[in-house]
Amino acid sequence: MEDRDGSRADRARRVADVLRQRIVDGAYEEVLPDERTLGRSLGATRNVVREALNMLRDEGVVTRRRGIGTLVTGQKAGHGLARLVGLAEELTAYGTVTNEVREARVVPHAPPAITQRLGLPERSEAVYIERLRSLDAEPLSLDSTWLAPDIGRPLLDRHLAGRDLFALIEETSGTRLGSAEVTVHAVTADPDTARLLDVAEGAALFTIDRLTRLADGRPVDAESLRVRADRFALRAVLPRD
Amino acid sequence: MEDRDGSRADRARRVADVLRQRIVDGAYEEVLPDERTLGRSLGATRNVVREALNMLRDEGVVTRRRGIGTLVTGQKAGHGLARLVGLAEELTAYGTVTNEVREARVVPHAPPAITQRLGLPERSEAVYIERLRSLDAEPLSLDSTWLAPDIGRPLLDRHLAGRDLFALIEETSGTRLGSAEVTVHAVTADPDTARLLDVAEGAALFTIDRLTRLADGRPVDAESLRVRADRFALRAVLPRD
Repeated sequence: MEDRDGSRADRARRVADVLRQRIVDGAYEEVLPDERTLGRSLGATRNVVREALNMLRDEGVVTRRRGIGTLVTGQKAGHGLARLVGLAEELTAYGTVTNEVREARVVPHAPPAITQRLGLPERSEAVYIERLRSLDAEPLSLDSTWLAPDIGRPLLDRHLAGRDLFALIEETSGTRLGSAEVTVHAVTADPDTARLLDVAEGAALFTIDRLTRLADGRPVDAESLRVRADRFALRAVLPRD
Repeated sequence: MEDRDGSRADRARRVADVLRQRIVDGAYEEVLPDERTLGRSLGATRNVVREALNMLRDEGVVTRRRGIGTLVTGQKAGHGLARLVGLAEELTAYGTVTNEVREARVVPHAPPAITQRLGLPERSEAVYIERLRSLDAEPLSLDSTWLAPDIGRPLLDRHLAGRDLFALIEETSGTRLGSAEVTVHAVTADPDTARLLDVAEGAALFTIDRLTRLADGRPVDAESLRVRADRFALRAVLPRD
């Protein structure tokens, strides 16, 4: 990238894009090269590099420490999008996963919006489970799950703090899960979620809505995950055909 | 959801989750039912419903108009994660896609970070293309693309404003694309990107980094897309096995 082209903000953004990709590729160990060296590698002036590093700091990709330099923030935990897996099933590769169970109970008359989504009779009961998930003792996500009663009730006796719901459902029901429809949004943290996830209000989050079905197609699990975007990225390898 | 449980902020968040899922499911036409009716359907008081609607307004899912009520914001354009497709290839289902070409040129000595990522010799040239993409005349994404020179050069003579790069690459090279490695981040908009995409500074965006390979495995296209999250969501159906 030549510095003559575009505004300085444009140049910083382009440099930030390249640098983010390199970091995610694992091109750097813990500490980034100094600004001058980075500038050579990126074809940019030090001022532009500095601005790009500030953008990546705001994204949570790096931290900047006076006297030390620019550090790669702990690698973002990756969540694949090829197969349906519980978050914890994957996150164990990145650290120790713990869950604080905030709610776990039968709701006698589930609201119509829930019974419709789960294909339950009107005024049916449903099971609600809410967990705050941490990775290496730092909050990562807030998971809210509505379950069909026959699937959810047996879970309430289980060790919800330590296990993935998907694995528990398959174990207690003796049935395999089939597939899930997933929608991923990017949002900013409202004050309450920010407090629970220990981020600043307005920080970037993923909201992942997931409706999971048994192998026979019946929807049994409607959940919303709010995930800290400074600690988490989605990954996929997509075939063209 | 029973209103006795958890703090009011907790209850509003849970109601917002259910309502967002219902809206994405297409359960409502343009205008949402009034707060009292929604409250019945969601098992919540009007105050909690109002707070939930405000959260969804901040997420860009609904707009609230005095005297009219709560409107479902234009459906978010969906981008599937099952196959590698250009954004425009999919977005045409949601409206008219136009591209403003901000840059399209040969960079004589591409920075090392780029040549390494694309597997090019050191100091090789590369092609840089930057486009601001709009859907129905409103900005949707800012796309920055670095291309291997043999792939990128022929594109510079083409009508970049009207076509997807993927389709153009396959056409001019006579080669099929193979696959792409994709990483999706959620970030907040820096001032420059906010201005270009016509959103508030700090608004939620997706950053999608994508390294695309030809069918023979050679990486030829390294791009970063910054996409407005109020107009865009990622979708997938994930199989368990």
